[in-house]
Amino acid sequence: MPNYRLDLSYDGSGFHGFARQPGQRTVQGELEQALLTVIHEQIETTGAGRTDTGVHARQQVVSFRSERAHDLVRLVRSLNGVIGPEVAIWSAHPVPDGWSARFSAEWRSYRYFIDNQPAADPLERHRAWHVHYDLDLVAMNEAAAHLVGEHDFTSFCRQVPGRSNVRRILESTWSKSKLVEFYVKSTSFCHQQVRSLVGLCADVGRGHVRPDDVPGVIAARNRARVGSIAPPHGLVLWEVGYSELDG
Amino acid sequence: MPNYRLDLSYDGSGFHGFARQPGQRTVQGELEQALLTVIHEQIETTGAGRTDTGVHARQQVVSFRSERAHDLVRLVRSLNGVIGPEVAIWSAHPVPDGWSARFSAEWRSYRYFIDNQPAADPLERHRAWHVHYDLDLVAMNEAAAHLVGEHDFTSFCRQVPGRSNVRRILESTWSKSKLVEFYVKSTSFCHQQVRSLVGLCADVGRGHVRPDDVPGVIAARNRARVGSIAPPHGLVLWEVGYSELDG
Repeated sequence: MPNYRLDLSYDGSGFHGFARQPGQRTVQGELEQALLTVIHEQIETTGAGRTDTGVHARQQVVSFRSERAHDLVRLVRSLNGVIGPEVAIWSAHPVPDGWSARFSAEWRSYRYFIDNQPAADPLERHRAWHVHYDLDLVAMNEAAAHLVGEHDFTSFCRQVPGRSNVRRILESTWSKSKLVEFYVKSTSFCHQQVRSLVGLCADVGRGHVRPDDVPGVIAARNRARVGSIAPPHGLVLWEVGYSELDG
Repeated sequence: MPNYRLDLSYDGSGFHGFARQPGQRTVQGELEQALLTVIHEQIETTGAGRTDTGVHARQQVVSFRSERAHDLVRLVRSLNGVIGPEVAIWSAHPVPDGWSARFSAEWRSYRYFIDNQPAADPLERHRAWHVHYDLDLVAMNEAAAHLVGEHDFTSFCRQVPGRSNVRRILESTWSKSKLVEFYVKSTSFCHQQVRSLVGLCADVGRGHVRPDDVPGVIAARNRARVGSIAPPHGLVLWEVGYSELDG
């Protein structure tokens, strides 16, 4: 059975997240429906990142096995014709047997956008969190530096019984052009981790938490130590990295 | 009677344009309704640019006279509390008697955004025109250079009987970062002019019209010579310029 990789973007506003859920409109559900329409197979896809309700993706990666080989240029065109304008399939590639968009991924990165001014920019309101208080970017970058490395991120994640929250963050920086943005790259992320990291850093940025308090928050392994979770609509799954060999 | 200037942005997607129209949801209508709620006066506002249905504004300027003086910091806050998230009032300033957002303006600029790739980016679809064919930016910039200066833009405008279509374009350039964008600055614009300029330049960009044909299209003063009008959702009223003295 041929194995395929799809790269896609989506506007998460109208979806109950990426992952298929009975009775809910999800990106994976719509994609599998589109595959059924186009190639007449009931496909079970695997995604690289399970984005939450309202979270967007610039690069999501999905893999699936099909009963037969497909003309991939045509497949992409047909899927884009069937699926709504909120999802764009960029490419389809054949991948080796056993390759998985989820398990073969070496890292994921997210960007989180903040519109930091007194009144919200109407043209950014769908994809940036409006924060009216002043943010201290220097302090936020100090906080972000404390996040890099392997830590138990239990303070930042919705608890899933029996699942470890140890993750290795590779990069974590704040910058500002028109919007304030957070870039974070990790081997993988636990549930609600990025939005909790943003919440904590924003508390640093407004002076409610000191950057040097961050190691203590991590060490506490206690969700209650992170006061706020940033809203989903500022978050974008940015990129997924695979090794050169199998991707 | 004190005279005031408001600077505002809006997402034009849900409006039948800027200008007040009976029975239609317009930016000016909503703004005047908000002023009625906040200062309890039936205000008649004047806007710097009459943007069409679906066109956005980064900087729109409005002036109005009120029966009494207002605390302007509070006025801005109250208006933003009443008006929807699609409109943001940035500031309110007192202006000299006789100053008009429309008649005192020395120039206006617009930006038009094109998402130029095979599949549309879902996160740009509300504010960029998706063009799937390749665009030649060099040719488009040659075309844009032909537009600069004082011309009769009848070929580019919806005809209004008895109104001149002579306008002086001060700047007109195409550039590309993530999106392809057109910047055009003029003392003023006639109706549908910018979208027609974009339509012609896009025809240049795909090789259907040569840049050197542009002077002939201008000289024809014939609307039929411009084949296509770009859709409104890629267009943003960018900035309005007033002289230092009276603004």
